[in-house]
Amino acid sequence: MIKKITIIGSGNIAHHLGVKLFNSGINIHQVLARNKKSGLKLASKINSIFINDIKKIEVSELILICVNDDNIYKIANQLPDIPVVHTSGNTSIEVFKNKKNSGVIYPVQTIRKNQRVNFKKIPICVEANNDLFQSKIINLCKLLSDKILVTSSEKRKKIHLSAVIASNFSNFCYTMSYNILKDNKINFDILHNLIIQTAKNCKLREPKLNQTGPAIRKDKTTIREHLASINDIHYKKIYKLLSENILKEHEK
Amino acid sequence: MIKKITIIGSGNIAHHLGVKLFNSGINIHQVLARNKKSGLKLASKINSIFINDIKKIEVSELILICVNDDNIYKIANQLPDIPVVHTSGNTSIEVFKNKKNSGVIYPVQTIRKNQRVNFKKIPICVEANNDLFQSKIINLCKLLSDKILVTSSEKRKKIHLSAVIASNFSNFCYTMSYNILKDNKINFDILHNLIIQTAKNCKLREPKLNQTGPAIRKDKTTIREHLASINDIHYKKIYKLLSENILKEHEK
Repeated sequence: MIKKITIIGSGNIAHHLGVKLFNSGINIHQVLARNKKSGLKLASKINSIFINDIKKIEVSELILICVNDDNIYKIANQLPDIPVVHTSGNTSIEVFKNKKNSGVIYPVQTIRKNQRVNFKKIPICVEANNDLFQSKIINLCKLLSDKILVTSSEKRKKIHLSAVIASNFSNFCYTMSYNILKDNKINFDILHNLIIQTAKNCKLREPKLNQTGPAIRKDKTTIREHLASINDIHYKKIYKLLSENILKEHEK
Repeated sequence: MIKKITIIGSGNIAHHLGVKLFNSGINIHQVLARNKKSGLKLASKINSIFINDIKKIEVSELILICVNDDNIYKIANQLPDIPVVHTSGNTSIEVFKNKKNSGVIYPVQTIRKNQRVNFKKIPICVEANNDLFQSKIINLCKLLSDKILVTSSEKRKKIHLSAVIASNFSNFCYTMSYNILKDNKINFDILHNLIIQTAKNCKLREPKLNQTGPAIRKDKTTIREHLASINDIHYKKIYKLLSENILKEHEK
């Protein structure tokens, strides 16, 4: 069982995983971060030592890399040969190709720093370069979540792409709605129930079968009026493109 | 208090409002529908008389029009002068300009026929052409929901537009994700928790502040790789446009 970990990063994922692992009895030996303020804050919260030089990394049973995708490769090449995992949805395990024990633990969730996260329900995609190390990181992940899936890098990338579309893009739809309502002095909370219900509906059946609205009804008058009433030219373009594609999807 | 109603239409809204009003003790005197099968089905469910000729409409205290936006105007012009409301988000009250008592009750929700609807939490936008009639339809709506808002046609149209973007478009994002996962033999339920959490987050703070993902991180490598991995040219176009706009929104 892995008991002693070093975390690299001090952003959203580093913070939430660090706190959760610490609360599960794991010794977070060191926190390596470029950002001194957030690195120190995280380290003090989880009874760990803050370092800002990769050469100061001491021996532990696992290095947990929680940094932006672009920096994983650079960091990986400077690490001592300690077992290592990253937490990215889109980065292949190949980034660790010279390591003896390496892997990935990718939590499928939108994670912000100042928000409570119930890890138990969050699916975690796990991958490792050998079976023994895989079973070790699965055991570690069981401290975090009840839903662990062994997933190849190729499949994980598809899951990450789908997660971006289902979560980041739908959140941008909420943002557009918020802005339109704000411009008209209407409180956004009028949409809360609708947004939650729309999300819940995809637990009931495949999302295509939940589609409602003017596009699927081929209600051209409403679509034309909506387009005419949108002031932002970018929002107008998005409205047009998504409406056309809802129609296309349902003509398949 | 309005006690005797005629419903026009037998689609999703007609069905749910009809059943809910009937269960609240309202006499649904007649159901007028073009579609004999669904009209008869609804009428029998709510102890009502099915008719398929507008000339057969008998006296009641309210006609509740639950048909597609394009047909409201046509129907309105053929009706006897009985108090009348429609249930459309995007149609102005002006469609009833020659009526003595007219109005709108627009439930802000995505409603499908074969799904339970908890009306109590659904905001209903109410509008009427005079105060007395307005208070009558507010009292009627109180049988349906705890959240009633008096809203002008102009504001209601903006609410409807925002609802389409927040609900129909986010559901289309779920559909795209479903299709990408299906093509890769991955079960969509891996995204359930993420989708629900993303929706719930907009109760906590304005959606812009909840934005995560490669676009807001300016993670161009991931965006490029995602684009390269999307086979559907339309999905590719949508991914590109939404990512560009997430960036734009956060540079404001």
